[in-house]
Amino acid sequence: MKKKLAILVSGTGSNMEEIAKNCIRGFINAEVTFVASDKSDAAGLEKARSLGISTMVLPYLKEGQESAEKVLIDKILKEQVDWLVLAGFMRILSPGLVQKLSGKIVNIHPSLLPALPGTKAIERAWNAGVKITGVTVHLVDEKVDHGPILAQEPVRVSGSETLESLERKIHDVEHRIYSRVLRDLVNRNLSVTEGRKPV
Amino acid sequence: MKKKLAILVSGTGSNMEEIAKNCIRGFINAEVTFVASDKSDAAGLEKARSLGISTMVLPYLKEGQESAEKVLIDKILKEQVDWLVLAGFMRILSPGLVQKLSGKIVNIHPSLLPALPGTKAIERAWNAGVKITGVTVHLVDEKVDHGPILAQEPVRVSGSETLESLERKIHDVEHRIYSRVLRDLVNRNLSVTEGRKPV
Repeated sequence: MKKKLAILVSGTGSNMEEIAKNCIRGFINAEVTFVASDKSDAAGLEKARSLGISTMVLPYLKEGQESAEKVLIDKILKEQVDWLVLAGFMRILSPGLVQKLSGKIVNIHPSLLPALPGTKAIERAWNAGVKITGVTVHLVDEKVDHGPILAQEPVRVSGSETLESLERKIHDVEHRIYSRVLRDLVNRNLSVTEGRKPV
Repeated sequence: MKKKLAILVSGTGSNMEEIAKNCIRGFINAEVTFVASDKSDAAGLEKARSLGISTMVLPYLKEGQESAEKVLIDKILKEQVDWLVLAGFMRILSPGLVQKLSGKIVNIHPSLLPALPGTKAIERAWNAGVKITGVTVHLVDEKVDHGPILAQEPVRVSGSETLESLERKIHDVEHRIYSRVLRDLVNRNLSVTEGRKPV
């Protein structure tokens, strides 16, 4: 039986698209059961449908977080989803939802956590003049952009870098690393470092 | 005329030793004018003396920060020191001293700043389960482990890593990167990225 992923997006869904294609071509031994968004006009939803994936809009705007998360968790339980994959989802999940799905929510963040959690991480790295930034894939806990780290990749800021070229480099790494981690998670080939204290 | 460095240490002074040797062998076109410490028994002082470098103890313990910094700045001005190099110096310099020597104080920190400023950065990176950490050399401003970044190097945490092996790897990178940055600073071969906003 193939493992099941659900993916949450708020924007273009370029990470979602890469993951979905890697499921379809068998690189990740899983299927994307559905793609959901807090925004009805997220470009990622249209992209998912064009790949034959069901989509849904979570009623954050109309009914608020509690209702939206209820819709989400009901669907996840009904479809027996194995992992919930955050791919540019711009809402913070409630501690209650995170606990219900403990160890089963995966997130990608465009920095080497614990550096620069929160939004606009690439721009903030750029403004700080860092020479190295990168990408982190981690399991989600109750704190924002926090939880056991599954994989990290560094990205070097070159002398001729612009913010735009840095964003492209980081997004390219995101696309590569996220599918690799999900493949390994699905194949039980990835162990989280245990027994260490949080930062 | 050779440029002049003063180095502050609190501990073993292994970075100081590497820098001093690289000055002696001409890799860095500068001389170490003196090595100072807040601790009279810092092993780095003995190491400096064995390399023929004058040392001094700053009277932090007996007379407090203000007096200690006065002794330091007087000596720096008298000797016309070009750069003050922090190498495991465990005191925070006052904003007044930092302003007086603005752009002339260099520090090394065992993380990829802005990740993990403060003490025990390697241990905290380890406890956080990061897959990548590293080393930062930066100019010192009024905040702790903060200021324009001159260089960064990543260090990968391997699957078989221990805290001890990680510390060794990071210290090796420190020794390499610090001398390289000082060489480039002295040769005016290093420009700080201008016009970016701080984190």
